[in-house]
Amino acid sequence: MLIVQKFGGSSVADAAKIERVAGIIADTYNEGNEVVVVLSAQGDTTDDLIAKAQEINPNPSKRELDMLLSVGEQISISLMAMQFEKMRIPAVSLTGWQVGFETNNAYGAARIKNISTERILRELDKRRIVIVAGFQGKNQFGDITTLGRGGSDTSAVALAAVLHADKCQIFTDVEGVFTADPRKVKNARKLNEITYDEMLELSSLGAQVLHNRSVEMAKRYNVDLEVLSSYERKPGTKVKEAVKSVEQMIISGIAKDTDAARITVVGLPDSPGAAFKVFRAVGKAKVNIDLIVQSIGKGGTNDISFTAPKGDVQAVLEVLEEHKATIGFDSVNVDNSIAKVSIVGAGMMSSSGIAAMMFEALFNAGINIQMISTSEIKVSVLIDGAYADQAVSAIHDKFF
Amino acid sequence: MLIVQKFGGSSVADAAKIERVAGIIADTYNEGNEVVVVLSAQGDTTDDLIAKAQEINPNPSKRELDMLLSVGEQISISLMAMQFEKMRIPAVSLTGWQVGFETNNAYGAARIKNISTERILRELDKRRIVIVAGFQGKNQFGDITTLGRGGSDTSAVALAAVLHADKCQIFTDVEGVFTADPRKVKNARKLNEITYDEMLELSSLGAQVLHNRSVEMAKRYNVDLEVLSSYERKPGTKVKEAVKSVEQMIISGIAKDTDAARITVVGLPDSPGAAFKVFRAVGKAKVNIDLIVQSIGKGGTNDISFTAPKGDVQAVLEVLEEHKATIGFDSVNVDNSIAKVSIVGAGMMSSSGIAAMMFEALFNAGINIQMISTSEIKVSVLIDGAYADQAVSAIHDKFF
Repeated sequence: MLIVQKFGGSSVADAAKIERVAGIIADTYNEGNEVVVVLSAQGDTTDDLIAKAQEINPNPSKRELDMLLSVGEQISISLMAMQFEKMRIPAVSLTGWQVGFETNNAYGAARIKNISTERILRELDKRRIVIVAGFQGKNQFGDITTLGRGGSDTSAVALAAVLHADKCQIFTDVEGVFTADPRKVKNARKLNEITYDEMLELSSLGAQVLHNRSVEMAKRYNVDLEVLSSYERKPGTKVKEAVKSVEQMIISGIAKDTDAARITVVGLPDSPGAAFKVFRAVGKAKVNIDLIVQSIGKGGTNDISFTAPKGDVQAVLEVLEEHKATIGFDSVNVDNSIAKVSIVGAGMMSSSGIAAMMFEALFNAGINIQMISTSEIKVSVLIDGAYADQAVSAIHDKFF
Repeated sequence: MLIVQKFGGSSVADAAKIERVAGIIADTYNEGNEVVVVLSAQGDTTDDLIAKAQEINPNPSKRELDMLLSVGEQISISLMAMQFEKMRIPAVSLTGWQVGFETNNAYGAARIKNISTERILRELDKRRIVIVAGFQGKNQFGDITTLGRGGSDTSAVALAAVLHADKCQIFTDVEGVFTADPRKVKNARKLNEITYDEMLELSSLGAQVLHNRSVEMAKRYNVDLEVLSSYERKPGTKVKEAVKSVEQMIISGIAKDTDAARITVVGLPDSPGAAFKVFRAVGKAKVNIDLIVQSIGKGGTNDISFTAPKGDVQAVLEVLEEHKATIGFDSVNVDNSIAKVSIVGAGMMSSSGIAAMMFEALFNAGINIQMISTSEIKVSVLIDGAYADQAVSAIHDKFF
């Protein structure tokens, strides 16, 4: 089998951890598999490099920041190759540009356009373990780009897709995907399987196991994805198109997101186009917004509320202020102390009363719901952030 | 003018030093010149990376070591570019492979085969300062190579050659080339000019200002080279083909080398081919030897002495032992406590009595000469290492 294995920065943070991870890879290799390894930068390397840059220029160009940050993975891959040399296992490290990760020109958040497989296949033919720098590529100018958040996961899934790998294993510091955060919810259960769509909803809702981009890509190319622990050698959670689960769970997970703020635009004219004008303006700030609710305010005016990442609130406020005359609103309120709690499950909409069960759990826990949003496979509610963990536990107890 | 400026690792060791160096470069740029900057890795970066590697594998392959070490310059160049961004001066950083430094496959000590000028010229046309990672290139396999000791000087001179630069300025922590080590010899004088050949002899004899490879390349392509201080803004020493000096100094410098050991092969047969057999064997150890002296030993046998870098003594001893039967010697002596002191000057051989003046200085200082070697532009003597500094001072006082 051809297997792509990805290890994050904490899994390769020091010499001892590199040695342990090499053991996992070597076992896979010694079973006769072809192995392509994707690594992130070691532990705090990226933060250290950013600090170095900040000392010189608090606002460097993304082009030069990518030039700087890409060394992080280059360090990891060469050290890992040296570890295999010590173990007398043939291995070779390759940077993003050496593999041939071609990306667009969006420095800091580049998209992969194409991947050459030639060099990797040649190395695999020599029975070498191929160790690839994740997170990075090269654009049409021959400049180094980085893929942004979750980039190494995306590198791994993309490689698995173009190499037609039999498996893509993402090793993390958790054992897999849980029905809720196991550190917070006592009875949280590990899922053996989950669908791409469920995983997408879970990760967009704050479950930090896999980044959405990588899951989207896995879904598009039908990559056999598995999330598993780099500490314990046991099966993790398989992410696939359709789950043939004997358990027939209605919901597959509960997630919370405390990084969102609620923004309310107060006193909009009760006329066609008000919402359009608000979101055309917000769209200019290139902010991902979520959970839009329109309500009737006082005196024939409307209010529109939505959530946005806390870090983007300032940008949203600025574009709204800029277009205040065109939109015609009275004021804007921001609430930073909210949490978004969601349940996700592919079978949800075909089962009646799932949302009601969730609301009942929150009611029994005495938690007030501020906003509600639903999709085919999820129900999200906005609540007071102080009750986020309590809400997740209450919902988990209700369903599992 | 098109000017190549090279700064070593200590000149870019931290944010403050990067800022000062950027000031020098900016002044050159603001005078209307096109500027290509070559940088080494910051201060201790290379040592830190080697330590990281050693922790994992005390004996990594040179291929992976080059992959690791090349990040050092990549960090320097991106930080320098960020500094210029802060100063609002257009600049761009380029790695060795981005510039197109093509090398042979000798990882760790690669030779430059070709340099593309396309990318650099394109950037210069945009009136950008081009910041190039020294010390590194790419081989025919698309793998990263490093040029070995003095590599960044070589990168700078090679770039100046292919770009037909008007000047190549090597900035160091000294003000130029001195008649002797100014930290050791009180009256040491800075030279305004020196020939390539003199510089070659001086650097091969232990003066650490410029590495021989870079001087050889400057000579071959007639690059207008200047060594100057990155701390003080004043002219340094120009290195050129022929020096039109009004001073007409007979010798241009005095150097000492305490890194050499004397190896004596004792009791060789007094027959043709003895020396040949010794050096054929030593040649197999790929060691640079120097200062060969053959003397008549006792009972119709000969002794041959030569010097070699201390780090290579073990290798020499091993090959001699291996070929002991073929060569037919009695024993080998090693003396590690020696120093090689040399005077260098293009006009030396045309002036009679230069060597005698040197020997007289040593005699007056009561220093015994163990071996002597001369070339067209140098005289070297081997003395007891304990008297090295004293010998340099005595010779310097005699000539200057």
